[in-house]
Amino acid sequence: MNKIALAIHGGAGTILRSEMTAELEAEYRGGLQNALEKGFAVLQQNGSALDAVERAVAELEDFPLFNAGRGSVFTHEGKNEMDAAIMDGRRLKAGAVAFLKNVKNPVKLARLVMERTEHILLAGNGANEFAREMNVDFEDDAYFFTDFRYQQLLKAREAGVVQLDHTAEEPEIIEETESSNLDKSVIRNPKSAIGTVGAVACDLQGNLAAATSTGGMTNKKFGRIGDTPLIGAGTYAENATCAISCTGHGEYFMLGATAFDVAARMKYKNLNLEDAARETLERLTEIKGEGGFIAVDAFGNVALPFNSEGMYRGFVKENGELVVEIYRD
Amino acid sequence: MNKIALAIHGGAGTILRSEMTAELEAEYRGGLQNALEKGFAVLQQNGSALDAVERAVAELEDFPLFNAGRGSVFTHEGKNEMDAAIMDGRRLKAGAVAFLKNVKNPVKLARLVMERTEHILLAGNGANEFAREMNVDFEDDAYFFTDFRYQQLLKAREAGVVQLDHTAEEPEIIEETESSNLDKSVIRNPKSAIGTVGAVACDLQGNLAAATSTGGMTNKKFGRIGDTPLIGAGTYAENATCAISCTGHGEYFMLGATAFDVAARMKYKNLNLEDAARETLERLTEIKGEGGFIAVDAFGNVALPFNSEGMYRGFVKENGELVVEIYRD
Repeated sequence: MNKIALAIHGGAGTILRSEMTAELEAEYRGGLQNALEKGFAVLQQNGSALDAVERAVAELEDFPLFNAGRGSVFTHEGKNEMDAAIMDGRRLKAGAVAFLKNVKNPVKLARLVMERTEHILLAGNGANEFAREMNVDFEDDAYFFTDFRYQQLLKAREAGVVQLDHTAEEPEIIEETESSNLDKSVIRNPKSAIGTVGAVACDLQGNLAAATSTGGMTNKKFGRIGDTPLIGAGTYAENATCAISCTGHGEYFMLGATAFDVAARMKYKNLNLEDAARETLERLTEIKGEGGFIAVDAFGNVALPFNSEGMYRGFVKENGELVVEIYRD
Repeated sequence: MNKIALAIHGGAGTILRSEMTAELEAEYRGGLQNALEKGFAVLQQNGSALDAVERAVAELEDFPLFNAGRGSVFTHEGKNEMDAAIMDGRRLKAGAVAFLKNVKNPVKLARLVMERTEHILLAGNGANEFAREMNVDFEDDAYFFTDFRYQQLLKAREAGVVQLDHTAEEPEIIEETESSNLDKSVIRNPKSAIGTVGAVACDLQGNLAAATSTGGMTNKKFGRIGDTPLIGAGTYAENATCAISCTGHGEYFMLGATAFDVAARMKYKNLNLEDAARETLERLTEIKGEGGFIAVDAFGNVALPFNSEGMYRGFVKENGELVVEIYRD
C-alpha cells in the first residue's frame, strides 16, 4: 500500500500579523482545517487523488475568506470572474476554466472539461455555456456578495482607488476616475488579494493529482488571465514526478513554467521532491516572482515552499496529524 | 559576433500531396519565402531577434493561406478569433492575446502586452479594449473574409458539418443541426486547419526570441484556448537555452509543456539543442500529440522536428541560403 498524502494552500503573499486578529486567524485556520479533513477523508476511504483535490478545493471555494469561489473578489462590474484547473497525474489529463461567472465550484467545472471534452482550457462566455450544458450548480450574485467583500467595496468607494497588487507592500494604486460609481470602485486589500486556493494529493494507489482555483485579480486591465488555469504554470501533475499547485504573482509562474519546472527537475536532474521544489523556488525568486506552491510525489512526500511573508497552508503528517500554518515561522 | 539564425513555420499536420496542386504549393512556398526574407533582413541589419520574429510572424499573418491574421478560419459566427504570443529570451518577458477580433496583426498586440502592461495574457473583450487603446491597425470583417475561406464556408454549408480536427485523418465530424444557416456552417478542411504560424530567431548579440500566432480552431466548443498564447506550452524563449514555437494539436503541447520542455532538457540534462528537441518530440509522440516545433539556440543552431506528415517551414542556412520545405522527405 502506498502512503497517502495531501497538502492544500489558501494563497501566498504578505500576510501581516499586525493586520490579523485572533478571531480572523481562527477563521482562516478553521477553513484550512475543514478542507484538509474533507480531502483526507476521501483518501482514507481509498478514494482517488483526483477526487481528494477536487473535494478539498471545492471546500476552499465554499469558504468565504479565500479569493476563490464564494470568496472571490469583485470585479469592477461588481461581479466575480473565476479561474480554475485540475490535472490527473495518472492519465496525464487536465481541464481548466477562465472568466467563469456565477458557477458555485469552478474546480468541478474544470474537472468536467477534462472528462467531457477534447479540450483543456475553456474561457469566457463559452465556458459559461459549457457550465449550463453540464448543469452544474450556479449561484446568484448575492451568494458571492459576502459582507466581507462588501466592506472592501465600501472602503474602496470611500478611497476612490483600485488597488491592483497582490501584496501589502508596494501597492499599485490606480486612481478611480468614476469614484462616485459604487460598482466601479473596488479595492483589493492584502487579505482580499491573497487567497488563490489549491490542493495536491497522493492516493493509496500512488496516483497524483493537483487542483487550483482563484477569484482572480480585481483590476480593470483588459481580461488578464493568470497562472491558475494554465497547465504547467500554476497547476501540474504526473505520476512519474509530482503534483503541484501554485499561488502568488501569476505572471512569474508563467515565465518560469513553475509547476512543470518542479517535475522537470525531478525527471531530468533526478532530484527528489524536496530538492526539486527548493530549486524551483530559488528560480522563482531569481526571476523576481513572489509566492509559493505545494507539492507531493508518489511516495507521499510533501513540500510547501514559499518566498513570501506567509502562505495559508496545511498538510497531513505521516502519523495522520493535520497541520495548518500561516506565517513563515 | 554571434551567428544569426531564423526559422519559421506555417503549421504542422497531415498535408497530403494528393490535395496539393503545383500552383498552390508555389503559393505556400512564396509565403514562407517572403516571411523568411523579411525576418532575416532585420537580423542582417543588426536588428533584434525580437523584432525579427515579430516581423516574420506579421508577414505570415498577412499571408492569406495560413490560419493566422488575415487567413484565419471563420468561427461559427462567421468571425475570426485569433491568439498570439511573443517572448523575449533576453529579458525573460512575454506577452500574449487570446480571442482577438479584427486586429490586423495579433503578434504586434502581443508585443504591446509585453511592453506596456504588467500582465502576460489578455483575453476576449479586454484584449480588444487594450488593442483599441494601443491604437493598433484594425481591419473590417471583409479583410479577413478571403475567397479561399469563403469557398470553405460554402462547402461546409453544402456538407452541413463542422469539422473539428486538425488533420486529414480521422476527422471529427459533428453534425450541423442548423445547416441551413450559412453563418453557422463552417468546415475546416486539412489545409484550413493547418496553419498556425511562428518564428524563432537568434540575433547578432546572441539574444533569442519566439513568436506564434493562430486563427484558432473553427469549432463551437465553448471558448477553447489552445497552446499558442500559453507561455511554456506553445511559445518559449530564454537566452540561456533556446527559443521555441510550436504547432499541432494544442492540448498535447499544454500537457507536455512542450516549448518549455526543450529548454528544461537543455538546462537540466545539459543536452544540445538538437538532442533536446529530439527528446521533446519523442515525449510529444509518447503522449499522443501530433505536430512539431521550430527551435533555435544562442549559437545559431536550428531544429525543426515534427511527427506529422508535414510542416510548412523554412530556415536560413549558415551560408545565408533560405530553405523552404513542406513534406517530410
